[in-house]
Amino acid sequence: MDVVKRLLPELSTALRKGNCGRLGVIGGSMEYTGAPYFAAISALKVGADLVHVFTAADAAPVVKSYSPELIVHPELEPGHWLQRMDALIVGPGLGREERSLQIARESIAEAQRLGIPLIIDADGLWAFTEHWISLTSPSLHRAELPIILTPNAVEMDRLAQKVLQLQTLGKSWEEIRYAVSRLADRLKMNIFVKGPTDMFATTDGKVRLFDREGSPRRPGGIGDCLSGVLACFLLWSTRSGGDIEKVGEAGSCFVRECARRAYEEIGRGMVAGDVIGQVAPLVKHIDKAIEKPSAV
Amino acid sequence: MDVVKRLLPELSTALRKGNCGRLGVIGGSMEYTGAPYFAAISALKVGADLVHVFTAADAAPVVKSYSPELIVHPELEPGHWLQRMDALIVGPGLGREERSLQIARESIAEAQRLGIPLIIDADGLWAFTEHWISLTSPSLHRAELPIILTPNAVEMDRLAQKVLQLQTLGKSWEEIRYAVSRLADRLKMNIFVKGPTDMFATTDGKVRLFDREGSPRRPGGIGDCLSGVLACFLLWSTRSGGDIEKVGEAGSCFVRECARRAYEEIGRGMVAGDVIGQVAPLVKHIDKAIEKPSAV
Repeated sequence: MDVVKRLLPELSTALRKGNCGRLGVIGGSMEYTGAPYFAAISALKVGADLVHVFTAADAAPVVKSYSPELIVHPELEPGHWLQRMDALIVGPGLGREERSLQIARESIAEAQRLGIPLIIDADGLWAFTEHWISLTSPSLHRAELPIILTPNAVEMDRLAQKVLQLQTLGKSWEEIRYAVSRLADRLKMNIFVKGPTDMFATTDGKVRLFDREGSPRRPGGIGDCLSGVLACFLLWSTRSGGDIEKVGEAGSCFVRECARRAYEEIGRGMVAGDVIGQVAPLVKHIDKAIEKPSAV
Repeated sequence: MDVVKRLLPELSTALRKGNCGRLGVIGGSMEYTGAPYFAAISALKVGADLVHVFTAADAAPVVKSYSPELIVHPELEPGHWLQRMDALIVGPGLGREERSLQIARESIAEAQRLGIPLIIDADGLWAFTEHWISLTSPSLHRAELPIILTPNAVEMDRLAQKVLQLQTLGKSWEEIRYAVSRLADRLKMNIFVKGPTDMFATTDGKVRLFDREGSPRRPGGIGDCLSGVLACFLLWSTRSGGDIEKVGEAGSCFVRECARRAYEEIGRGMVAGDVIGQVAPLVKHIDKAIEKPSAV
Protein backbone atom coordinates (compact mmCIF):
# COMPACT_ATOMS: atom_id res chain seq x y z
CA MET A 1 0.00 0.00 0.00
CA ASP A 2 3.03 2.30 -0.31
CA VAL A 3 1.60 3.59 -3.55
CA VAL A 4 -1.56 4.74 -1.72
CA LYS A 5 0.42 6.08 1.21
CA ARG A 6 2.31 8.46 -1.03
CA LEU A 7 -0.89 9.97 -2.42
CA LEU A 8 -2.62 10.81 0.87
CA PRO A 9 -2.40 14.53 1.65
CA GLU A 10 -0.78 15.35 4.96
CA LEU A 11 -3.29 16.25 7.64
CA SER A 12 -2.81 19.08 10.06
CA THR A 13 -4.94 21.23 12.33
CA ALA A 14 -4.23 24.16 10.02
CA LEU A 15 -6.39 22.66 7.27
CA ARG A 16 -9.77 24.17 6.51
CA LYS A 17 -12.94 22.43 5.34
CA GLY A 18 -12.51 21.76 1.67
CA ASN A 19 -8.72 21.65 1.60
CA CYS A 20 -8.68 17.87 1.15
CA GLY A 21 -11.10 18.09 -1.73
CA ARG A 22 -14.51 19.20 -2.85
CA LEU A 23 -15.83 16.60 -5.25
CA GLY A 24 -18.80 16.44 -7.56
CA VAL A 25 -20.67 13.40 -8.82
CA ILE A 26 -22.98 13.77 -11.81
CA GLY A 27 -25.21 10.71 -11.98
CA GLY A 28 -28.27 8.92 -10.72
CA SER A 29 -31.61 8.44 -12.39
CA MET A 30 -35.06 7.20 -11.55
CA GLU A 31 -33.81 3.58 -11.62
CA TYR A 32 -30.29 3.99 -10.31
CA THR A 33 -29.94 5.81 -7.02
CA GLY A 34 -27.36 3.54 -5.37
CA ALA A 35 -24.54 4.16 -7.85
CA PRO A 36 -24.03 7.94 -7.28
CA TYR A 37 -24.35 7.37 -3.54
CA PHE A 38 -21.68 4.65 -3.56
CA ALA A 39 -19.28 6.83 -5.57
CA ALA A 40 -19.88 9.88 -3.38
CA ILE A 41 -19.64 8.19 0.01
CA SER A 42 -16.49 6.32 -1.05
CA ALA A 43 -14.83 9.63 -1.95
CA LEU A 44 -15.82 11.07 1.40
CA LYS A 45 -14.55 8.07 3.34
CA VAL A 46 -11.24 7.90 1.57
CA GLY A 47 -10.64 11.50 2.58
CA ALA A 48 -12.50 14.14 0.57
CA ASP A 49 -13.98 16.95 2.68
CA LEU A 50 -17.15 17.70 0.76
CA VAL A 51 -19.01 15.75 -1.89
CA HIS A 52 -21.81 17.17 -4.01
CA VAL A 53 -24.12 14.89 -5.95
CA PHE A 54 -25.91 16.34 -8.96
CA THR A 55 -28.76 14.00 -9.75
CA ALA A 56 -32.17 13.68 -11.39
CA ALA A 57 -34.99 15.43 -9.51
CA ASP A 58 -36.75 12.07 -8.99
CA ALA A 59 -33.64 10.48 -7.54
CA ALA A 60 -32.56 13.31 -5.26
CA PRO A 61 -34.73 12.67 -2.16
CA VAL A 62 -33.74 9.00 -2.24
CA VAL A 63 -30.01 9.69 -2.57
CA LYS A 64 -30.33 12.24 0.23
CA SER A 65 -32.02 9.63 2.40
CA TYR A 66 -29.02 7.27 2.15
CA SER A 67 -26.80 9.68 4.03
CA PRO A 68 -26.86 13.12 5.62
CA GLU A 69 -23.14 13.40 4.79
CA LEU A 70 -23.72 14.24 1.13
CA ILE A 71 -24.86 17.47 -0.48
CA VAL A 72 -27.43 16.40 -3.04
CA HIS A 73 -28.70 18.75 -5.74
CA PRO A 74 -31.96 17.76 -7.45
CA GLU A 75 -30.64 18.44 -10.94
CA LEU A 76 -28.02 16.74 -13.03
CA GLU A 77 -26.65 19.99 -14.35
CA PRO A 78 -24.01 21.38 -11.99
CA GLY A 79 -24.24 24.90 -13.43
CA HIS A 80 -22.21 27.44 -11.48
CA TRP A 81 -21.22 24.81 -8.92
CA LEU A 82 -18.91 23.12 -11.39
CA GLN A 83 -16.13 25.67 -11.12
CA ARG A 84 -16.02 25.11 -7.36
CA MET A 85 -15.35 21.40 -7.72
CA ASP A 86 -11.80 20.10 -7.33
CA ALA A 87 -12.61 16.86 -9.16
CA LEU A 88 -15.61 15.44 -10.96
CA ILE A 89 -17.07 11.98 -11.51
CA VAL A 90 -19.48 11.71 -14.43
CA GLY A 91 -21.72 8.74 -14.98
CA PRO A 92 -22.63 6.51 -12.00
CA GLY A 93 -26.29 5.53 -12.42
CA LEU A 94 -26.75 8.25 -15.05
CA GLY A 95 -29.06 6.22 -17.28
CA ARG A 96 -29.45 6.82 -20.99
CA GLU A 97 -32.08 9.48 -21.39
CA GLU A 98 -30.91 11.84 -24.08
CA ARG A 99 -31.12 14.90 -21.84
CA SER A 100 -28.96 13.21 -19.19
CA LEU A 101 -26.39 12.18 -21.77
CA GLN A 102 -26.32 15.72 -23.11
CA ILE A 103 -25.69 17.15 -19.61
CA ALA A 104 -22.94 14.58 -19.12
CA ARG A 105 -21.26 15.60 -22.37
CA GLU A 106 -21.51 19.31 -21.60
CA SER A 107 -20.19 18.79 -18.08
CA ILE A 108 -17.26 16.72 -19.36
CA ALA A 109 -16.40 19.43 -21.88
CA GLU A 110 -16.73 22.20 -19.30
CA ALA A 111 -14.67 20.31 -16.71
CA GLN A 112 -11.95 19.85 -19.32
CA ARG A 113 -12.05 23.54 -20.17
CA LEU A 114 -11.68 24.36 -16.46
CA GLY A 115 -8.93 21.78 -16.02
CA ILE A 116 -10.87 19.84 -13.38
CA PRO A 117 -9.63 16.26 -12.84
CA LEU A 118 -12.24 13.94 -14.23
CA ILE A 119 -13.42 10.35 -13.90
CA ILE A 120 -15.82 9.13 -16.59
CA ASP A 121 -17.67 5.94 -15.65
CA ALA A 122 -20.71 3.83 -16.55
CA ASP A 123 -23.29 5.67 -18.67
CA GLY A 124 -20.96 8.67 -18.70
CA LEU A 125 -18.90 6.45 -21.01
CA TRP A 126 -22.01 5.77 -23.06
CA ALA A 127 -22.58 9.51 -23.46
CA PHE A 128 -18.97 9.87 -24.39
CA THR A 129 -18.77 6.88 -26.72
CA GLU A 130 -21.76 7.93 -28.75
CA HIS A 131 -20.23 11.32 -29.42
CA TRP A 132 -16.56 10.70 -28.95
CA ILE A 133 -15.55 12.55 -32.09
CA SER A 134 -17.04 15.81 -30.89
CA LEU A 135 -15.00 15.53 -27.71
CA THR A 136 -11.68 15.09 -29.41
CA SER A 137 -11.44 18.54 -30.88
CA PRO A 138 -7.95 20.01 -30.34
CA SER A 139 -9.04 22.20 -27.43
CA LEU A 140 -10.31 19.17 -25.51
CA HIS A 141 -7.44 17.00 -26.45
CA ARG A 142 -4.56 17.93 -24.23
CA ALA A 143 -2.48 14.98 -23.16
CA GLU A 144 -1.72 16.51 -19.78
CA LEU A 145 -5.37 16.67 -18.68
CA PRO A 146 -6.04 14.41 -15.69
CA ILE A 147 -8.86 12.30 -17.10
CA ILE A 148 -9.50 8.64 -16.43
CA LEU A 149 -12.12 6.56 -18.19
CA THR A 150 -13.14 3.54 -16.11
CA PRO A 151 -14.86 1.02 -18.41
CA ASN A 152 -15.76 -2.53 -17.45
CA ALA A 153 -15.39 -5.29 -20.06
CA VAL A 154 -18.63 -4.44 -21.87
CA GLU A 155 -17.98 -0.69 -21.86
CA MET A 156 -14.41 -1.25 -23.08
CA ASP A 157 -15.74 -3.29 -25.97
CA ARG A 158 -18.14 -0.52 -26.89
CA LEU A 159 -15.38 2.11 -26.78
CA ALA A 160 -13.02 -0.03 -28.83
CA GLN A 161 -15.66 -0.76 -31.45
CA LYS A 162 -16.64 2.86 -31.75
CA VAL A 163 -13.20 4.42 -31.83
CA LEU A 164 -10.96 1.67 -33.23
CA GLN A 165 -13.47 -0.60 -34.99
CA LEU A 166 -12.03 -3.40 -32.83
CA GLN A 167 -13.94 -5.93 -30.74
CA THR A 168 -12.51 -6.76 -27.31
CA LEU A 169 -15.23 -8.77 -25.56
CA GLY A 170 -14.18 -12.40 -25.33
CA LYS A 171 -10.78 -11.62 -26.87
CA SER A 172 -7.44 -12.71 -25.48
CA TRP A 173 -5.65 -10.79 -22.84
CA GLU A 174 -3.02 -9.60 -25.36
CA GLU A 175 -5.64 -8.37 -27.81
CA ILE A 176 -7.43 -6.39 -25.10
CA ARG A 177 -4.15 -4.95 -23.93
CA TYR A 178 -3.34 -3.87 -27.46
CA ALA A 179 -6.76 -2.25 -27.88
CA VAL A 180 -6.55 -0.39 -24.57
CA SER A 181 -3.14 0.93 -25.47
CA ARG A 182 -4.27 2.20 -28.87
CA LEU A 183 -7.44 3.66 -27.39
CA ALA A 184 -5.58 5.65 -24.72
CA ASP A 185 -3.16 6.94 -27.33
CA ARG A 186 -5.92 7.82 -29.77
CA LEU A 187 -8.18 9.56 -27.25
CA LYS A 188 -5.27 11.02 -25.28
CA MET A 189 -7.05 9.92 -22.12
CA ASN A 190 -6.04 7.48 -19.41
CA ILE A 191 -8.10 4.30 -19.32
CA PHE A 192 -8.66 2.02 -16.34
CA VAL A 193 -10.27 -1.23 -17.53
CA LYS A 194 -11.84 -3.12 -14.63
CA GLY A 195 -11.56 -6.89 -14.77
CA PRO A 196 -10.06 -10.00 -13.17
CA THR A 197 -6.78 -8.16 -13.84
CA ASP A 198 -7.17 -4.39 -13.96
CA MET A 199 -5.46 -2.67 -16.90
CA PHE A 200 -4.36 0.94 -16.77
CA ALA A 201 -3.30 2.65 -19.97
CA THR A 202 -1.77 6.11 -19.99
CA THR A 203 -1.91 8.57 -22.86
CA ASP A 204 1.50 7.45 -24.16
CA GLY A 205 -0.10 4.05 -24.83
CA LYS A 206 1.77 2.30 -22.03
CA VAL A 207 -0.34 -0.33 -20.22
CA ARG A 208 0.18 -1.54 -16.69
CA LEU A 209 -1.57 -4.49 -15.07
CA PHE A 210 -2.72 -4.76 -11.48
CA ASP A 211 -3.89 -8.03 -10.03
CA ARG A 212 -3.65 -7.76 -6.28
CA GLU A 213 -6.01 -10.22 -4.58
CA GLY A 214 -9.57 -8.89 -4.37
CA SER A 215 -12.92 -10.61 -3.88
CA PRO A 216 -14.37 -13.51 -5.89
CA ARG A 217 -17.85 -11.99 -5.41
CA ARG A 218 -19.04 -9.32 -7.87
CA PRO A 219 -22.18 -7.64 -6.52
CA GLY A 220 -23.20 -4.35 -8.14
CA GLY A 221 -21.67 -1.13 -6.82
CA ILE A 222 -17.98 -1.97 -6.42
CA GLY A 223 -17.18 -0.09 -9.62
CA ASP A 224 -18.87 3.00 -8.16
CA CYS A 225 -16.67 2.71 -5.09
CA LEU A 226 -13.63 2.65 -7.39
CA SER A 227 -14.80 5.86 -9.14
CA GLY A 228 -15.03 7.68 -5.84
CA VAL A 229 -11.63 6.53 -4.60
CA LEU A 230 -9.95 7.14 -7.94
CA ALA A 231 -11.33 10.69 -8.12
CA CYS A 232 -9.68 11.54 -4.79
CA PHE A 233 -6.40 9.91 -5.73
CA LEU A 234 -6.44 11.71 -9.08
CA LEU A 235 -7.08 15.04 -7.41
CA TRP A 236 -4.36 14.63 -4.81
CA SER A 237 -1.86 13.36 -7.35
CA THR A 238 -2.61 16.22 -9.74
CA ARG A 239 -2.11 18.77 -6.98
CA SER A 240 1.24 17.36 -5.98
CA GLY A 241 2.41 16.87 -9.57
CA GLY A 242 2.44 13.11 -9.19
CA ASP A 243 2.61 10.43 -11.83
CA ILE A 244 -0.82 9.37 -13.13
CA GLU A 245 0.32 5.72 -13.43
CA LYS A 246 0.49 5.68 -9.65
CA VAL A 247 -3.13 6.84 -9.43
CA GLY A 248 -4.27 3.78 -11.37
CA GLU A 249 -2.13 1.47 -9.32
CA ALA A 250 -3.26 3.00 -6.02
CA GLY A 251 -6.94 2.86 -7.01
CA SER A 252 -6.72 -0.77 -8.04
CA CYS A 253 -4.76 -1.85 -4.95
CA PHE A 254 -6.95 0.08 -2.56
CA VAL A 255 -10.35 -1.09 -3.79
CA ARG A 256 -9.18 -4.68 -4.25
CA GLU A 257 -7.91 -4.73 -0.68
CA CYS A 258 -11.24 -3.29 0.56
CA ALA A 259 -13.09 -6.00 -1.37
CA ARG A 260 -10.76 -8.71 -0.09
CA ARG A 261 -11.31 -7.61 3.51
CA ALA A 262 -15.08 -7.37 3.04
CA TYR A 263 -15.20 -10.84 1.52
CA GLU A 264 -13.05 -12.23 4.29
CA GLU A 265 -15.39 -10.75 6.88
CA ILE A 266 -18.80 -11.23 5.28
CA GLY A 267 -18.31 -14.04 2.77
CA ARG A 268 -20.56 -14.65 -0.22
CA GLY A 269 -23.27 -12.36 1.18
CA MET A 270 -20.97 -9.37 0.76
CA VAL A 271 -22.56 -6.31 -0.90
CA ALA A 272 -21.10 -3.01 -2.11
CA GLY A 273 -21.85 -1.35 1.23
CA ASP A 274 -19.59 -3.87 2.94
CA VAL A 275 -16.71 -2.98 0.61
CA ILE A 276 -17.27 0.72 1.31
CA GLY A 277 -17.35 -0.12 5.02
CA GLN A 278 -13.70 -1.12 4.67
CA VAL A 279 -12.58 2.20 3.13
CA ALA A 280 -12.10 4.19 6.33
CA PRO A 281 -10.44 1.34 8.30
CA LEU A 282 -8.02 0.68 5.43
CA VAL A 283 -7.09 4.36 5.10
CA LYS A 284 -6.52 4.47 8.85
CA HIS A 285 -4.33 1.40 8.61
CA ILE A 286 -2.29 3.02 5.83
CA ASP A 287 -2.03 6.32 7.75
CA LYS A 288 -0.79 4.45 10.83
CA ALA A 289 1.77 2.72 8.66
CA ILE A 290 3.06 6.15 7.62
CA GLU A 291 4.01 6.74 11.22
CA LYS A 292 5.72 3.34 11.40
CA PRO A 293 7.00 2.82 7.86
CA SER A 294 7.85 -0.84 8.33
CA ALA A 295 4.29 -1.87 9.22
CA VAL A 296 2.69 -2.09 5.74
CA MET B 1 -26.71 -27.86 5.54
CA ASP B 2 -25.10 -30.18 3.00
CA VAL B 3 -28.13 -29.71 0.79
CA VAL B 4 -27.49 -25.94 0.69
CA LYS B 5 -23.76 -26.40 0.27
CA ARG B 6 -24.26 -28.35 -2.95
CA LEU B 7 -26.32 -25.56 -4.51
CA LEU B 8 -23.90 -22.69 -3.96
CA PRO B 9 -22.06 -21.73 -7.19
CA GLU B 10 -18.30 -21.86 -6.99
CA LEU B 11 -16.73 -18.42 -6.65
CA SER B 12 -13.61 -17.35 -8.50
CA THR B 13 -11.88 -14.14 -9.45
CA ALA B 14 -12.77 -14.84 -13.09
CA LEU B 15 -16.47 -14.13 -12.38
CA ARG B 16 -18.02 -10.96 -13.72
CA LYS B 17 -20.81 -8.90 -12.18
CA GLY B 18 -24.05 -10.76 -12.87
CA ASN B 19 -22.58 -14.27 -13.20
CA CYS B 20 -24.04 -15.36 -9.85
CA GLY B 21 -27.48 -14.12 -10.83
CA ARG B 22 -29.54 -11.14 -11.87
CA LEU B 23 -32.92 -11.41 -10.14
CA GLY B 24 -36.18 -9.55 -10.48
CA VAL B 25 -38.89 -9.01 -7.88
CA ILE B 26 -42.33 -7.85 -9.01
CA GLY B 27 -44.25 -6.61 -6.00
CA GLY B 28 -44.88 -3.81 -3.57
CA SER B 29 -47.80 -1.44 -3.34
CA MET B 30 -48.77 1.72 -1.52
CA GLU B 31 -49.40 -0.32 1.65
CA TYR B 32 -46.71 -2.98 1.38
CA THR B 33 -43.18 -1.73 0.79
CA GLY B 34 -41.34 -4.05 3.17
CA ALA B 35 -42.18 -7.32 1.43
CA PRO B 36 -40.43 -6.70 -1.92
CA TYR B 37 -37.45 -5.25 -0.06
CA PHE B 38 -37.15 -8.32 2.19
CA ALA B 39 -37.32 -10.68 -0.79
CA ALA B 40 -34.80 -8.65 -2.80
CA ILE B 41 -32.22 -8.08 -0.08
CA SER B 42 -32.41 -11.75 0.97
CA ALA B 43 -31.56 -12.79 -2.60
CA LEU B 44 -28.63 -10.37 -2.66
CA LYS B 45 -27.29 -11.56 0.67
CA VAL B 46 -27.54 -15.23 -0.13
CA GLY B 47 -25.38 -14.58 -3.19
CA ALA B 48 -27.14 -12.96 -6.18
CA ASP B 49 -25.11 -10.21 -7.86
CA LEU B 50 -27.88 -7.82 -8.92
CA VAL B 51 -31.50 -7.54 -7.84
CA HIS B 52 -34.08 -5.39 -9.60
CA VAL B 53 -37.37 -4.51 -7.91
CA PHE B 54 -40.33 -3.59 -10.11
CA THR B 55 -42.83 -1.84 -7.88
CA ALA B 56 -45.72 0.61 -7.80
CA ALA B 57 -44.75 4.23 -8.47
CA ASP B 58 -45.96 5.22 -4.97
CA ALA B 59 -43.88 2.55 -3.32
CA ALA B 60 -40.65 3.02 -5.28
CA PRO B 61 -39.02 5.95 -3.41
CA VAL B 62 -39.62 4.15 -0.13
CA VAL B 63 -38.27 0.79 -1.29
CA LYS B 64 -35.24 2.60 -2.76
CA SER B 65 -34.59 4.34 0.53
CA TYR B 66 -34.32 1.03 2.42
CA SER B 67 -31.09 0.19 0.64
CA PRO B 68 -28.83 1.61 -2.05
CA GLU B 69 -27.95 -1.98 -3.00
CA LEU B 70 -31.19 -2.55 -4.93
CA ILE B 71 -32.17 -1.30 -8.36
CA VAL B 72 -35.77 -0.14 -7.98
CA HIS B 73 -37.97 0.66 -10.96
CA PRO B 74 -41.07 2.77 -10.26
CA GLU B 75 -43.38 0.52 -12.24
CA LEU B 76 -44.61 -3.01 -11.66
CA GLU B 77 -44.31 -3.94 -15.29
CA PRO B 78 -40.79 -5.18 -16.04
CA GLY B 79 -41.14 -4.63 -19.82
CA HIS B 80 -37.90 -5.19 -21.72
CA TRP B 81 -36.00 -5.82 -18.47
CA LEU B 82 -37.70 -9.19 -18.00
CA GLN B 83 -35.62 -11.00 -20.59
CA ARG B 84 -32.45 -9.92 -18.78
CA MET B 85 -33.53 -11.56 -15.51
CA ASP B 86 -32.14 -14.97 -14.56
CA ALA B 87 -34.97 -15.64 -12.09
CA LEU B 88 -38.15 -13.85 -11.06
CA ILE B 89 -40.20 -13.54 -7.87
CA VAL B 90 -43.79 -12.43 -8.39
CA GLY B 91 -46.01 -11.29 -5.57
CA PRO B 92 -44.39 -9.95 -2.38
CA GLY B 93 -46.49 -7.00 -1.22
CA LEU B 94 -48.24 -6.85 -4.59
CA GLY B 95 -51.70 -6.01 -3.25
CA ARG B 96 -54.92 -6.79 -5.07
CA GLU B 97 -55.59 -3.90 -7.39
CA GLU B 98 -56.80 -5.36 -10.65
CA ARG B 99 -54.07 -3.67 -12.70
CA SER B 100 -51.36 -5.10 -10.40
CA LEU B 101 -52.86 -8.58 -10.62
CA GLN B 102 -53.00 -8.27 -14.38
CA ILE B 103 -49.31 -7.30 -14.57
CA ALA B 104 -48.47 -10.22 -12.30
CA ARG B 105 -50.34 -12.64 -14.57
CA GLU B 106 -48.74 -11.27 -17.72
CA SER B 107 -45.28 -11.38 -16.16
CA ILE B 108 -45.79 -14.96 -15.00
CA ALA B 109 -46.88 -15.98 -18.49
CA GLU B 110 -43.99 -14.13 -20.13
CA ALA B 111 -41.42 -15.55 -17.69
CA GLN B 112 -42.72 -19.03 -18.46
CA ARG B 113 -42.49 -18.36 -22.17
CA LEU B 114 -38.87 -17.23 -21.70
CA GLY B 115 -38.08 -20.20 -19.44
CA ILE B 116 -37.12 -17.96 -16.50
CA PRO B 117 -37.15 -19.75 -13.12
CA LEU B 118 -40.06 -18.40 -11.15
CA ILE B 119 -41.27 -18.07 -7.56
CA ILE B 120 -44.92 -17.10 -7.10
CA ASP B 121 -45.76 -15.85 -3.62
CA ALA B 122 -48.37 -13.90 -1.64
CA ASP B 123 -50.71 -11.86 -3.85
CA GLY B 124 -48.95 -13.29 -6.88
CA LEU B 125 -50.76 -16.47 -5.83
CA TRP B 126 -54.00 -14.53 -5.59
CA ALA B 127 -53.55 -13.25 -9.14
CA PHE B 128 -52.79 -16.77 -10.16
CA THR B 129 -55.58 -18.46 -8.23
CA GLU B 130 -58.28 -16.18 -9.58
CA HIS B 131 -57.30 -17.00 -13.12
CA TRP B 132 -55.56 -20.32 -12.75
CA ILE B 133 -57.39 -21.90 -15.65
CA SER B 134 -56.10 -19.33 -18.11
CA LEU B 135 -52.55 -20.11 -16.99
CA THR B 136 -52.80 -23.83 -17.53
CA SER B 137 -53.02 -23.73 -21.28
CA PRO B 138 -50.71 -26.34 -22.84
CA SER B 139 -48.00 -23.82 -23.73
CA LEU B 140 -47.69 -22.73 -20.09
CA HIS B 141 -47.94 -26.15 -18.70
CA ARG B 142 -44.60 -27.82 -19.12
CA ALA B 143 -43.63 -30.05 -16.22
CA GLU B 144 -39.97 -29.21 -16.60
CA LEU B 145 -40.42 -25.50 -15.97
CA PRO B 146 -38.70 -24.41 -12.78
CA ILE B 147 -41.65 -22.85 -10.99
CA ILE B 148 -42.37 -22.91 -7.28
CA LEU B 149 -45.55 -21.62 -5.67
CA THR B 150 -45.01 -20.69 -2.02
CA PRO B 151 -48.44 -20.51 -0.31
CA ASN B 152 -48.97 -20.22 3.42
CA ALA B 153 -51.88 -22.13 5.00
CA VAL B 154 -54.53 -19.61 3.92
CA GLU B 155 -53.19 -19.29 0.39
CA MET B 156 -52.96 -23.07 0.14
CA ASP B 157 -56.60 -23.37 1.16
CA ARG B 158 -57.62 -20.86 -1.48
CA LEU B 159 -55.66 -22.69 -4.18
CA ALA B 160 -57.09 -26.06 -3.16
CA GLN B 161 -60.65 -24.73 -3.10
CA LYS B 162 -60.29 -23.10 -6.46
CA VAL B 163 -58.53 -25.87 -8.31
CA LEU B 164 -59.62 -29.04 -6.49
CA GLN B 165 -62.81 -27.91 -4.74
CA LEU B 166 -61.13 -29.11 -1.53
CA GLN B 167 -60.80 -27.26 1.75
CA THR B 168 -57.45 -27.57 3.57
CA LEU B 169 -57.61 -24.96 6.34
CA GLY B 170 -58.02 -26.70 9.69
CA LYS B 171 -57.73 -30.11 8.08
CA SER B 172 -55.50 -32.94 9.23
CA TRP B 173 -51.92 -33.17 8.18
CA GLU B 174 -52.70 -36.15 5.91
CA GLU B 175 -55.55 -34.33 4.18
CA ILE B 176 -53.38 -31.31 3.48
CA ARG B 177 -50.61 -33.53 2.20
CA TYR B 178 -53.05 -35.27 -0.13
CA ALA B 179 -54.35 -31.93 -1.43
CA VAL B 180 -50.86 -30.51 -2.02
CA SER B 181 -49.88 -33.62 -3.92
CA ARG B 182 -52.95 -33.47 -6.16
CA LEU B 183 -52.53 -29.75 -6.69
CA ALA B 184 -48.89 -30.05 -7.80
CA ASP B 185 -49.82 -32.85 -10.18
CA ARG B 186 -52.82 -30.98 -11.53
CA LEU B 187 -51.04 -27.64 -12.04
CA LYS B 188 -47.74 -29.25 -13.01
CA MET B 189 -46.01 -26.81 -10.72
CA ASN B 190 -43.90 -27.35 -7.60
CA ILE B 191 -45.54 -26.19 -4.39
CA PHE B 192 -43.83 -25.18 -1.15
CA VAL B 193 -46.44 -24.90 1.61
CA LYS B 194 -45.08 -22.91 4.54
CA GLY B 195 -46.16 -24.14 7.96
CA PRO B 196 -45.02 -25.67 11.26
CA THR B 197 -43.77 -28.42 8.98
CA ASP B 198 -42.96 -27.22 5.47
CA MET B 199 -44.35 -29.38 2.66
CA PHE B 200 -42.77 -29.50 -0.76
CA ALA B 201 -44.65 -31.17 -3.59
CA THR B 202 -43.08 -31.76 -6.97
CA THR B 203 -44.95 -32.04 -10.23
CA ASP B 204 -45.05 -35.83 -10.02
CA GLY B 205 -47.22 -35.42 -6.91
CA LYS B 206 -44.50 -36.56 -4.50
CA VAL B 207 -44.53 -34.62 -1.20
CA ARG B 208 -41.58 -34.17 1.11
CA LEU B 209 -41.71 -32.71 4.61
CA PHE B 210 -39.11 -30.47 6.24
CA ASP B 211 -39.25 -29.69 9.91
CA ARG B 212 -35.82 -28.52 10.97
CA GLU B 213 -35.98 -26.35 14.10
CA GLY B 214 -36.84 -22.74 13.28
CA SER B 215 -38.25 -19.92 15.39
CA PRO B 216 -41.38 -19.99 17.59
CA ARG B 217 -41.93 -16.35 16.64
CA ARG B 218 -43.64 -15.53 13.33
CA PRO B 219 -43.31 -11.80 12.62
CA GLY B 220 -44.23 -10.63 9.10
CA GLY B 221 -41.59 -10.82 6.40
CA ILE B 222 -40.01 -14.22 6.96
CA GLY B 223 -41.95 -15.63 4.01
CA ASP B 224 -40.50 -12.86 1.82
CA CYS B 225 -37.03 -13.85 2.94
CA LEU B 226 -37.84 -17.42 1.90
CA SER B 227 -38.92 -16.23 -1.59
CA GLY B 228 -35.63 -14.44 -2.12
CA VAL B 229 -33.51 -17.36 -0.95
CA LEU B 230 -35.57 -19.90 -2.86
CA ALA B 231 -35.27 -17.89 -6.09
CA CYS B 232 -31.47 -18.03 -5.89
CA PHE B 233 -31.43 -21.71 -5.04
CA LEU B 234 -33.85 -22.43 -7.89
CA LEU B 235 -31.72 -20.48 -10.35
CA TRP B 236 -28.47 -22.14 -9.33
CA SER B 237 -30.04 -25.59 -9.31
CA THR B 238 -31.63 -25.06 -12.74
CA ARG B 239 -28.30 -23.96 -14.20
CA SER B 240 -26.49 -27.00 -12.89
CA GLY B 241 -29.27 -29.43 -13.82
CA GLY B 242 -30.00 -30.19 -10.18
CA ASP B 243 -32.99 -31.87 -8.61
CA ILE B 244 -35.82 -29.47 -7.70
CA GLU B 245 -36.63 -31.44 -4.53
CA LYS B 246 -33.28 -30.32 -3.19
CA VAL B 247 -34.22 -26.68 -3.81
CA GLY B 248 -37.24 -27.03 -1.54
CA GLU B 249 -35.23 -28.80 1.13
CA ALA B 250 -32.39 -26.27 0.96
CA GLY B 251 -34.77 -23.31 1.15
CA SER B 252 -36.61 -24.71 4.14
CA CYS B 253 -33.44 -25.66 6.02
CA PHE B 254 -31.68 -22.40 5.30
CA VAL B 255 -34.46 -20.02 6.32
CA ARG B 256 -35.42 -22.08 9.38
CA GLU B 257 -31.82 -22.00 10.55
CA CYS B 258 -31.65 -18.21 9.99
CA ALA B 259 -34.86 -17.82 12.01
CA ARG B 260 -33.58 -20.13 14.76
CA ARG B 261 -30.36 -18.12 15.06
CA ALA B 262 -32.20 -14.79 15.04
CA TYR B 263 -34.59 -15.99 17.75
CA GLU B 264 -31.71 -17.32 19.83
CA GLU B 265 -29.99 -13.94 19.59
CA ILE B 266 -32.93 -11.51 19.81
CA GLY B 267 -35.72 -13.48 21.48
CA ARG B 268 -39.38 -12.59 21.25
CA GLY B 269 -38.62 -9.14 19.82
CA MET B 270 -37.15 -10.72 16.70
CA VAL B 271 -38.30 -9.18 13.40
CA ALA B 272 -37.82 -10.15 9.75
CA GLY B 273 -34.76 -7.92 9.47
CA ASP B 274 -33.09 -9.97 12.20
CA VAL B 275 -33.71 -13.17 10.25
CA ILE B 276 -32.27 -11.55 7.11
CA GLY B 277 -29.32 -10.38 9.20
CA GLN B 278 -28.44 -14.06 9.65
CA VAL B 279 -28.38 -14.81 5.90
CA ALA B 280 -24.83 -13.69 5.10
CA PRO B 281 -23.27 -15.19 8.27
CA LEU B 282 -25.00 -18.53 7.65
CA VAL B 283 -23.86 -18.65 4.00
CA LYS B 284 -20.36 -17.83 5.16
CA HIS B 285 -20.53 -20.65 7.69
CA ILE B 286 -21.68 -23.07 4.98
CA ASP B 287 -18.99 -21.89 2.56
CA LYS B 288 -16.35 -22.38 5.24
CA ALA B 289 -17.68 -25.87 5.83
CA ILE B 290 -17.08 -26.58 2.13
CA GLU B 291 -13.41 -26.05 2.76
CA LYS B 292 -13.51 -28.31 5.85
CA PRO B 293 -16.24 -30.87 5.04
CA SER B 294 -16.45 -32.28 8.55
CA ALA B 295 -17.40 -28.97 10.15
CA VAL B 296 -21.16 -28.85 9.44
